[in-house]
Amino acid sequence: MTTADTPLFEMLKRVTTDSLATILLKKGLRNQWVRGPMPLKLDYPRTIGRAFTMRFIPVREDVPGAMARKLPVNRDAVEVMPEGCIAIADARGVTAAATFGDIVVMRMAKRGVAGIVTDGAVRDRNGLLSIGLPIWTTGITAPPPATHLMLAAWQEPIGCGGVAIFPDDVIVADVDGVIVIPSALALEVAEAGLEQERLDEWQMDQIKRGVSLADLAPMPKK
Amino acid sequence: MTTADTPLFEMLKRVTTDSLATILLKKGLRNQWVRGPMPLKLDYPRTIGRAFTMRFIPVREDVPGAMARKLPVNRDAVEVMPEGCIAIADARGVTAAATFGDIVVMRMAKRGVAGIVTDGAVRDRNGLLSIGLPIWTTGITAPPPATHLMLAAWQEPIGCGGVAIFPDDVIVADVDGVIVIPSALALEVAEAGLEQERLDEWQMDQIKRGVSLADLAPMPKK
Amino acid sequence: MTTADTPLFEMLKRVTTDSLATILLKKGLRNQWVRGPMPLKLDYPRTIGRAFTMRFIPVREDVPGAMARKLPVNRDAVEVMPEGCIAIADARGVTAAATFGDIVVMRMAKRGVAGIVTDGAVRDRNGLLSIGLPIWTTGITAPPPATHLMLAAWQEPIGCGGVAIFPDDVIVADVDGVIVIPSALALEVAEAGLEQERLDEWQMDQIKRGVSLADLAPMPKK
Amino acid sequence: MTTADTPLFEMLKRVTTDSLATILLKKGLRNQWVRGPMPLKLDYPRTIGRAFTMRFIPVREDVPGAMARKLPVNRDAVEVMPEGCIAIADARGVTAAATFGDIVVMRMAKRGVAGIVTDGAVRDRNGLLSIGLPIWTTGITAPPPATHLMLAAWQEPIGCGGVAIFPDDVIVADVDGVIVIPSALALEVAEAGLEQERLDEWQMDQIKRGVSLADLAPMPKK
Amino acid sequence: MTTADTPLFEMLKRVTTDSLATILLKKGLRNQWVRGPMPLKLDYPRTIGRAFTMRFIPVREDVPGAMARKLPVNRDAVEVMPEGCIAIADARGVTAAATFGDIVVMRMAKRGVAGIVTDGAVRDRNGLLSIGLPIWTTGITAPPPATHLMLAAWQEPIGCGGVAIFPDDVIVADVDGVIVIPSALALEVAEAGLEQERLDEWQMDQIKRGVSLADLAPMPKK
Amino acid sequence: MTTADTPLFEMLKRVTTDSLATILLKKGLRNQWVRGPMPLKLDYPRTIGRAFTMRFIPVREDVPGAMARKLPVNRDAVEVMPEGCIAIADARGVTAAATFGDIVVMRMAKRGVAGIVTDGAVRDRNGLLSIGLPIWTTGITAPPPATHLMLAAWQEPIGCGGVAIFPDDVIVADVDGVIVIPSALALEVAEAGLEQERLDEWQMDQIKRGVSLADLAPMPKK
Repeated sequence: MTTADTPLFEMLKRVTTDSLATILLKKGLRNQWVRGPMPLKLDYPRTIGRAFTMRFIPVREDVPGAMARKLPVNRDAVEVMPEGCIAIADARGVTAAATFGDIVVMRMAKRGVAGIVTDGAVRDRNGLLSIGLPIWTTGITAPPPATHLMLAAWQEPIGCGGVAIFPDDVIVADVDGVIVIPSALALEVAEAGLEQERLDEWQMDQIKRGVSLADLAPMPKK
Repeated sequence: MTTADTPLFEMLKRVTTDSLATILLKKGLRNQWVRGPMPLKLDYPRTIGRAFTMRFIPVREDVPGAMARKLPVNRDAVEVMPEGCIAIADARGVTAAATFGDIVVMRMAKRGVAGIVTDGAVRDRNGLLSIGLPIWTTGITAPPPATHLMLAAWQEPIGCGGVAIFPDDVIVADVDGVIVIPSALALEVAEAGLEQERLDEWQMDQIKRGVSLADLAPMPKK
Repeated sequence: MTTADTPLFEMLKRVTTDSLATILLKKGLRNQWVRGPMPLKLDYPRTIGRAFTMRFIPVREDVPGAMARKLPVNRDAVEVMPEGCIAIADARGVTAAATFGDIVVMRMAKRGVAGIVTDGAVRDRNGLLSIGLPIWTTGITAPPPATHLMLAAWQEPIGCGGVAIFPDDVIVADVDGVIVIPSALALEVAEAGLEQERLDEWQMDQIKRGVSLADLAPMPKK
Repeated sequence: MTTADTPLFEMLKRVTTDSLATILLKKGLRNQWVRGPMPLKLDYPRTIGRAFTMRFIPVREDVPGAMARKLPVNRDAVEVMPEGCIAIADARGVTAAATFGDIVVMRMAKRGVAGIVTDGAVRDRNGLLSIGLPIWTTGITAPPPATHLMLAAWQEPIGCGGVAIFPDDVIVADVDGVIVIPSALALEVAEAGLEQERLDEWQMDQIKRGVSLADLAPMPKK
Repeated sequence: MTTADTPLFEMLKRVTTDSLATILLKKGLRNQWVRGPMPLKLDYPRTIGRAFTMRFIPVREDVPGAMARKLPVNRDAVEVMPEGCIAIADARGVTAAATFGDIVVMRMAKRGVAGIVTDGAVRDRNGLLSIGLPIWTTGITAPPPATHLMLAAWQEPIGCGGVAIFPDDVIVADVDGVIVIPSALALEVAEAGLEQERLDEWQMDQIKRGVSLADLAPMPKK
Repeated sequence: MTTADTPLFEMLKRVTTDSLATILLKKGLRNQWVRGPMPLKLDYPRTIGRAFTMRFIPVREDVPGAMARKLPVNRDAVEVMPEGCIAIADARGVTAAATFGDIVVMRMAKRGVAGIVTDGAVRDRNGLLSIGLPIWTTGITAPPPATHLMLAAWQEPIGCGGVAIFPDDVIVADVDGVIVIPSALALEVAEAGLEQERLDEWQMDQIKRGVSLADLAPMPKK
């Protein structure tokens, strides 16, 4: 997160992932909600950041031994993550081994990473809860990454939970999961999202007063 | 729920879904527990109502534009739901888009709907929790229904979580999930369920006093 | 199939499901290929017809015994199918019981049904092959429908293999599976499909002569 | 649990399933974490015991009526479980019927069973929580076992959640799930696990003080 | 197969698995068709035999090294199979490693085994086809059993493709898959199956002559 | 394929994927068989080549419109494939859209590509069969790639069917599927594979003559 992102992120903090999904659908983007990851704890604040993508592949027992090309590991990736980013991992839906564990997550917290998303699993539930860094994950597990996964690369286009994610996309995560906003659309989506929130509030207010869904009054112009 | 249902529902409030499943199995009904939906919150009271069925199909992008036949929407269905019913949705197991969101659910609460069951997902977890209307759902999501689903009809026979459900079946939902009782069997199942509860209590009492499972005394006649 | 459909169907016979999927995607319809069903035999001719939809739900052991409302059965549906239609069944992906067996299929052949599609299974593989009526199915099985399924209704909007299907949609099925064309779009899709076939042939011809994909010449206007 | 196990179990109480998975992987055992079961409640203490294996198969309606060989039932198994064991069930991943219910679990508690693991489901969530015996389960359900499952045998080698389990293997279960330690390796794994815990603590301490992952100092010898 | 089975098996050769499934359903046995296995080749004759059950569990890398109890292997099981049996394997649905390969299958053929059923996979497709022993399998694979599976026992009650199978059950396998007939019911099921075949033929004959499904004449008594 | 590979590939042509899987397992490589892809036609010759990896991600509707970074397409990749390679695609298991269609495959054939492997699907079954280039695929489909997938990159490490694949790994594909041999191990695996074939033949010969599995004579040294 650069300071240039501050106004954008301030707006997005007031927009639910639900409203963002609605706005993105209206713009023809049907597939921006990441299937699988849910918050490890339900009272994280809404979390926003630029995507730092990580890509995992299945483990191979001869790596690194018999291999010409050395692969990076989680620890290498962590040290290049920019402050305020959201680390988002394509773990291929593998939940029988962790994508992240507590030591790496503690270092990510120290470096100012804003949040973590994985379509795989994390381990050390209690340790992660005490660190407090917000995490959206598909599962909890005990085995270390190397049981099933190897980090192949970072900051490449990835798929995560069935959604395309490019480095620097804007990630918004809350109690209803994770939404990906293409970088070029972020500002207009945020603005339309705020308007959607205003509409929802307007309608909810009428419903509470007993108006039927058919009789909702149109929202007055601001 | 009509007042005619009051005595039946009062009985059922004292019978767990576990005992109902046991009784239904004894009557040859093996498939009355809805696979998937669990309560959004664990402290809802046991919830009972006649089924108001809703049927969803996959979305099609040309609807309603290029289509001769106009489909209804959630909002239409809500306004015809009878007080005390349980709205139960055949969402085809789709959890990447909501079957219901908070505005519609607030209106359902206003109209006196007793509860909601879906084999798909709901969105706006916090909003739904604050409304308080009891909800059994297979998932939480952010995208609106139109991302993947269209309402096709209501009050038809449906499948939900692998179970056949007919309009006006009796739905009982608690912390162990959702049971469907065929309307014609509801009274006898409720009566046998109460007797099952009495048996469980009798047996549990002996177990607590150290009796082995082989030595359980038969329950005295009432 | 009415005689009014003859010119349309003649055009569609010359268009692959691949080209139809391409054209539908260009028109913004991303989800018209039915996931699951494949031809029982690979040398059926391309088969085209108006959709006669059938909707199945999970079986319930008390039906029809304890039930007020009598459900129809396959046999009832067959006798109202119009000549030239394609019977397409929403079997909820259940492949552990047949949607159709050989006696019913023989009657469908007698009545002039053009083809059968199910996202479930059929039984009596050899009998069905000898009848010859073209069938696209997700599985082969032995148990009769009543083991797991009941017919709930026909000529309603359904989902089949993840796709919305309305009565009278145009179904095209070949060796690459089943495509659904919304009725209102059928003519323009067929015309664009024929043009797509011409383009494919033009390009394939160049590729065969060694032209690279980058150097393909544009197709001359007809 | 015999008194001979006391020192081993005391050691294991201080080792997370995460560290055990790491140690087992280093010894070439890649598949010792049971996929599926999670604790019914997050604040159970870490639970350790020798495996008492139970093996379920799909139910058959003619059992026991038309069958020559009588099968045992849960109740028979419970009365032979040794004090301090962990009952671990191969339920074939079936979650539409319970592997265990509250009456049987209460008797298991009375007999001093240390914990329960199933790759299927349990029923009577509230009853089980009030009994307090620690349970790791893949699902919650309402129907009784006989809806889908029959107990076939106990104290045989089984698979559970994709892992081989032999009678008297050492089971360790905590907030990150369930680890199986082959009996012959238990002591050396426990000792290496304690050392792993010391290493984690050493590293975490440095990370908290701002050391980067690349600059971690090696742990001093004890 | 003992000579005592000859008359029973002669009857069953003339009954399809479809008719057997229908008859078993009428007797209240809803779950006797094995989900998954299909014939490796479509022109095997209908194959009938008593079940020789085999039970596999997930592999563990320390077996047999660090294990007290030695497990049997495929080769041991094959040498005790009675002539005319059908070897049926509970492979837990694992298709990433073979349950059987060509050398073992050749020996089974030599010993007079009548057929093989697995809910897992076989390997060496060409070798198996040339041996000719009829095989019903869920998949084809290359890796040997030890990659993922260990034989745990034989002639125990097992589950296979979601169905309970006891040693000496009667297995019937044809082009529509595999049916399990409980031993005690085999004769009456075979007799009713023959009658069902006669009914099907009677009805099919009428349908071919243009009779509608509603107008089928009742079958005359034999 | 360079001429340097000729002797290696000649050896591998005589080794089944089964024997290769056995040898790799003995060397500690448990996960080298690609789950999913099977040959489009059963009589392709065994096909061998160096891996040309392709990586797909889920489609996004704003690509390329609203995106800063332009992605490559299939057509770009094809023009850089070396003669004799096997193009192997990480399609994330998506079978509702093709990874390859007939025009691209014809160009690949023209460029001397040896074979194609995808854990997704191909389209235009008949066209691909007539081109004849050997293809291993998980599914057949009609929709074009852009319906669900975008090519993200080539010649990167990928996962395909649950297996890690690096550029220039040796791919061997036959009637039992696809095996991946790490480049550094290819020669020793090929040599051990030939020896394994000789052992299999030796054993099979004895079995055919009636020797039991227990009595197999050890193979004489060459």
